[in-house]
Amino acid sequence: MDAFFMPRGCAVVGASRDPGKPGHQVLRNMQAAGYRGQLYPVNPREKEILGLPCYPDLLSIEGLVDLAVVCVPAAVAAAVLDDVARRRASRGDLGALISTPGGYAETGTNEGRTRQATLERFCRERGVLHLGPNCIGVIDNLNRVDTTFLLGTAHVPGGISFISQSGALGAWLLQSWSSRPRPTGFNRFISLGNMVGVDLVQALEYLGGDPATAVIGLYLEGYADGRLLLETAAAVDKPVVVLKVGVTPAGRTAAQSHTGALAGEDELYDAAFRQYGLVRARTMEELMDTLQAFDTLPSPRGNRVFLMTHAGGPGVYATDALAALPELEFARVADSTRRELETILPPFSSICRPEGHLDMTASGTVDQHARALETLLADDGVDAVLLLDLPTLFLSAEDLAAGLVRAYRRASARLDAPKPFLPCLMAGKWVAQGRRLLEEAGIPTFETPDRAARALVNLLRHRRLGEGARRTLAMPRPAATPEPTGRRVLTEPEAYRRLEEQGIAVARWREAGDAAAAARVAAAIGFPVALKLVSPDLPHKSDAGAVVLGLRRPEEVSRAWRQAEVAARAHLPRLRLRGAVLQRMARGREMIVGGLRDPQFGPVVMVGMGGVLAEHFRDVAFRLAPVDHAGARAMIGELQGLPVLMGARGTPPADLDALAGMVAVVSRFLASATDVLELDLNPVMAGVPADGCQAVDALLVVTESSR
Amino acid sequence: MDAFFMPRGCAVVGASRDPGKPGHQVLRNMQAAGYRGQLYPVNPREKEILGLPCYPDLLSIEGLVDLAVVCVPAAVAAAVLDDVARRRASRGDLGALISTPGGYAETGTNEGRTRQATLERFCRERGVLHLGPNCIGVIDNLNRVDTTFLLGTAHVPGGISFISQSGALGAWLLQSWSSRPRPTGFNRFISLGNMVGVDLVQALEYLGGDPATAVIGLYLEGYADGRLLLETAAAVDKPVVVLKVGVTPAGRTAAQSHTGALAGEDELYDAAFRQYGLVRARTMEELMDTLQAFDTLPSPRGNRVFLMTHAGGPGVYATDALAALPELEFARVADSTRRELETILPPFSSICRPEGHLDMTASGTVDQHARALETLLADDGVDAVLLLDLPTLFLSAEDLAAGLVRAYRRASARLDAPKPFLPCLMAGKWVAQGRRLLEEAGIPTFETPDRAARALVNLLRHRRLGEGARRTLAMPRPAATPEPTGRRVLTEPEAYRRLEEQGIAVARWREAGDAAAAARVAAAIGFPVALKLVSPDLPHKSDAGAVVLGLRRPEEVSRAWRQAEVAARAHLPRLRLRGAVLQRMARGREMIVGGLRDPQFGPVVMVGMGGVLAEHFRDVAFRLAPVDHAGARAMIGELQGLPVLMGARGTPPADLDALAGMVAVVSRFLASATDVLELDLNPVMAGVPADGCQAVDALLVVTESSR
Repeated sequence: MDAFFMPRGCAVVGASRDPGKPGHQVLRNMQAAGYRGQLYPVNPREKEILGLPCYPDLLSIEGLVDLAVVCVPAAVAAAVLDDVARRRASRGDLGALISTPGGYAETGTNEGRTRQATLERFCRERGVLHLGPNCIGVIDNLNRVDTTFLLGTAHVPGGISFISQSGALGAWLLQSWSSRPRPTGFNRFISLGNMVGVDLVQALEYLGGDPATAVIGLYLEGYADGRLLLETAAAVDKPVVVLKVGVTPAGRTAAQSHTGALAGEDELYDAAFRQYGLVRARTMEELMDTLQAFDTLPSPRGNRVFLMTHAGGPGVYATDALAALPELEFARVADSTRRELETILPPFSSICRPEGHLDMTASGTVDQHARALETLLADDGVDAVLLLDLPTLFLSAEDLAAGLVRAYRRASARLDAPKPFLPCLMAGKWVAQGRRLLEEAGIPTFETPDRAARALVNLLRHRRLGEGARRTLAMPRPAATPEPTGRRVLTEPEAYRRLEEQGIAVARWREAGDAAAAARVAAAIGFPVALKLVSPDLPHKSDAGAVVLGLRRPEEVSRAWRQAEVAARAHLPRLRLRGAVLQRMARGREMIVGGLRDPQFGPVVMVGMGGVLAEHFRDVAFRLAPVDHAGARAMIGELQGLPVLMGARGTPPADLDALAGMVAVVSRFLASATDVLELDLNPVMAGVPADGCQAVDALLVVTESSR
Repeated sequence: MDAFFMPRGCAVVGASRDPGKPGHQVLRNMQAAGYRGQLYPVNPREKEILGLPCYPDLLSIEGLVDLAVVCVPAAVAAAVLDDVARRRASRGDLGALISTPGGYAETGTNEGRTRQATLERFCRERGVLHLGPNCIGVIDNLNRVDTTFLLGTAHVPGGISFISQSGALGAWLLQSWSSRPRPTGFNRFISLGNMVGVDLVQALEYLGGDPATAVIGLYLEGYADGRLLLETAAAVDKPVVVLKVGVTPAGRTAAQSHTGALAGEDELYDAAFRQYGLVRARTMEELMDTLQAFDTLPSPRGNRVFLMTHAGGPGVYATDALAALPELEFARVADSTRRELETILPPFSSICRPEGHLDMTASGTVDQHARALETLLADDGVDAVLLLDLPTLFLSAEDLAAGLVRAYRRASARLDAPKPFLPCLMAGKWVAQGRRLLEEAGIPTFETPDRAARALVNLLRHRRLGEGARRTLAMPRPAATPEPTGRRVLTEPEAYRRLEEQGIAVARWREAGDAAAAARVAAAIGFPVALKLVSPDLPHKSDAGAVVLGLRRPEEVSRAWRQAEVAARAHLPRLRLRGAVLQRMARGREMIVGGLRDPQFGPVVMVGMGGVLAEHFRDVAFRLAPVDHAGARAMIGELQGLPVLMGARGTPPADLDALAGMVAVVSRFLASATDVLELDLNPVMAGVPADGCQAVDALLVVTESSR
């Protein structure tokens, strides 16, 4: 990959004198970046472009060529490949190629797909490292390379590297960065295009090993092997911030299970990002702020924020923005800090009323801001300081910025580790110079307190993940696939038998062949019981009236059988009846535990609050399977209904350990039983410790192959 | 109020030659605004300031003075009032005063409060219209007045007027507006300060009657008479967009009822804004975008949006942003439109795949953009067009903007009513010129598709409210307060009697004095029944074990009495027992219906999903009471759990008409029974039409005065 970022010689095929052509702009961008290697325009019709001698073809370049950037249209690019082949055969250099044109598989045409296949074969056979096609190439601000034809990139070095699955989104990012009061610095930029050759995982690994990269940003539309992507990102020892698009409505249309209906692609990506420690940004602004924050701010030791303002209304606004994020809390300072602030600040300042908040009124001077900032940063109860500024007649943004830079440096010098300081300068062009001053001193600035708070939360989220919440386990070996039943949806007894083999707790049950036997079996199990007819034709038994709950006496059981059979035959006259399941009624709170096998992520496990209303609220947590007991406990911890599980309004608390145990066992079953497509245990009754946690229904969908 | 916005003569008391003083900047701003009346600096120590002759005091000004802006500190302002009094006595002019300094009640000091009381009395007694103190005054871009001492206001006329309860937040807004590529135009700006004299409601009424104001923006921290504020805003025949801050955590600490615990100030404001047709903006960006959209965009006829892009990744990003807003849908165009787009656009364009979406690829020209826009606007299935632009080598933002302006004009000329067109130009300074061109032509531009989509939703929200969702009813006359009981919390029978008097349905119930009577009474009511002990000491009966449900036989009832009594006496040894209520078990879905009397809003009614889990999700809707049947039905329509109520997963649908009827009756009860502080009917069982809707428990809290 180094050939892309530090080529000693770089040819631009399709170089042009026309400023409206990519083959011109690539040369300009290489020059603007300050490229220090040899730059070779290639165009048979020109002698010189932008002061550089022009070559008729790749073969005629005398010097060493590590990289060629192909800017000719796809239809002509095949001829270029011939030259590449000849040059590699004769000279042995030119090991890397960037193809910028579109016209390949992304068009959805046969012609495009054929072209792409040809390109792929060529690169594989000739050992050429390839980026693209349909991409805008790479930028490296340290090695001074820019093979893109973008307008408006600022070549300012920094610690951010970015991988984009869209050239245009990359352009949006780079143009936005260069429009800031001080252009945002970055290290490397990679546009992936159609991923012939270099693909997403390879790019991620490469940047992971790049010492000049402090944080990796990723614009993601999708990746076929989702689990490989996540494992790669998790193995990178630096923060990875993802803007994932393509948020389609939840659910897969063909799903038979409730779990399947809830497990939309985006829900799984979201859960997996959390599980593997990637930080998800929801908007372009959040992406930019978070990347800059990771690159320039020290890691916060905790979540206690202090808010400084000299403007009342904006202070209330910022208080709302901070309070809206449950991950943050307002800092409580020591009494001595409060007294010091009282001596520093103007009369009528509002200090620590409420806690973690200081409004020094519009009469606050630069010096008062500076001294208050130093005082707050020295307080052990403060993990980060957020400051608001609007320029006034009495206080210019430039003067304040200069004072804050000095104060922050003094304060940081006295600390073992510096603390994050997030100034929000909120008045557009009127604060541009102040923001420039702060950013040149390495202090990021934010346009609104909302945006600063969100970036801080993302720093904290990553810190917490670093503390061990990130749990991924190795895949167990595939289990032997059981005897096929000839059906994709197993009956309840078939499902129970497979589950119990794996140690998954099912409420006591037995089968019965007729109504009289059912009454006897029920008595043996112990009342109260449920009666559920068994048929390969009834995957959703309740809808067909084939389930009767809460039976307390033998004669109720036989009567229930007859009722259920009448109802089920009314529902489906040609019903094949295979007896009934009698099952002891279990106590506890209704939960749902399930899972599925996803094409991108493989086995996935889910736990959620059960019951029709809770299902409507989609209060569920997903993880890639398998998870261990602690991982399952963390999933339960994500449920909004957790306080209810823990015993709200006088109801006894459910045995969360037993529930976590079941989730972990189910996740191992899903990971090893490769024939299982979907599983619903719905409901699982999560009882008090004495009752434990038991499935009282099961829907198990298997592959055709396990017929 | 006209005296503030079109004063023929304006004195500035405390005028100064020092550019760092408010008394200097006010003069500069008046001059910068192009003030056409007479401007009189007042300062005994100066002869001339900024080319204007200076007066030693207000009395020595020969010309007519309609308005004085007081810029001297609060401590000195009292002397100014003497001069105002003398001038009013001698000359009869000077009917309006703006007090800018702080140092009044906002300081929380006795001195400040006394000063403010003095000022208030002065203005009332002398008939002086007063704005402030602790405010930054007013701006009027049509009449060319600017009494503020802000830096950076652009005096560009427009249809937005803004009322701010914070001067600094006003400054943030005005500085942000003037920083846009084309400064945002506005009509009037009012900073309210401490509201001595002109208050919020008066300002709102005034702007409501101002023909040059198309939309009113409001920064709101709070207002003592919330209902008056809302009624005033609803009576204004133009959109009112509110940024409400001070979002404290939900709930009032002293609440006895579940309803009270859920009814935080912010929840009530939010519900009331919806009820009275105000549009709430959640962020500063949303406020600015929405105000501009109301001022410059035509009202959308529907919610069907078409997205145009030439950039793939940003197009997917925008699709997510639009899809995230359930208020919007993607437009389906006619086949003829699709065919026309196919002939217009470049090969490999993606047209209506998916519906409502067009990606013309980076090769799209200005002309192709223009023709596609015209074609889309002409399609009856398209209500609004959102367009994305990032400048490329092939297409500059300026050229595109010019083409779009022409195309939009041509298209609009052919329509009965123009349609909203929302171009998003997303690349910072690289699109500034393009945005300027569009905005000068009256087309608002947006920085991101998220922001454009949000503004469009706010336009739609207001349109829908205009169609009749806004329902507010007159207050009924106060009812006679019943015989006091001597307690704030009524017992269940006391509460039931009051509720039944009002026609509120309660499940069949009777009282019993002992266990034997309870068994007889239960049999008379009909099994199954619930038994609930009655005691003035047990407002929360269930927690004390004083409730037993589902009793099916007389002997179960007497046993339940003894059990409950043991449990309740264990809970509270000195329990005063006043018999028990026997109540028929009612079927249906658990709901909660309740209400309270709020200091700002008066009577408020609530409906929500019941049961411990649903309560945890806070799935409730509030309205200011009273509401009629249609209003109650709209509240139920806001519940997230509505699909469950309508019969999810084979459960029968609840009788929503009966439920709405109960909510409406409860709301009238709350509105007329002025002694009622809090009411919980929890649960209400909302059954099928045959069962109806009945309360099965009631908590009623009344004022001390109804003892």
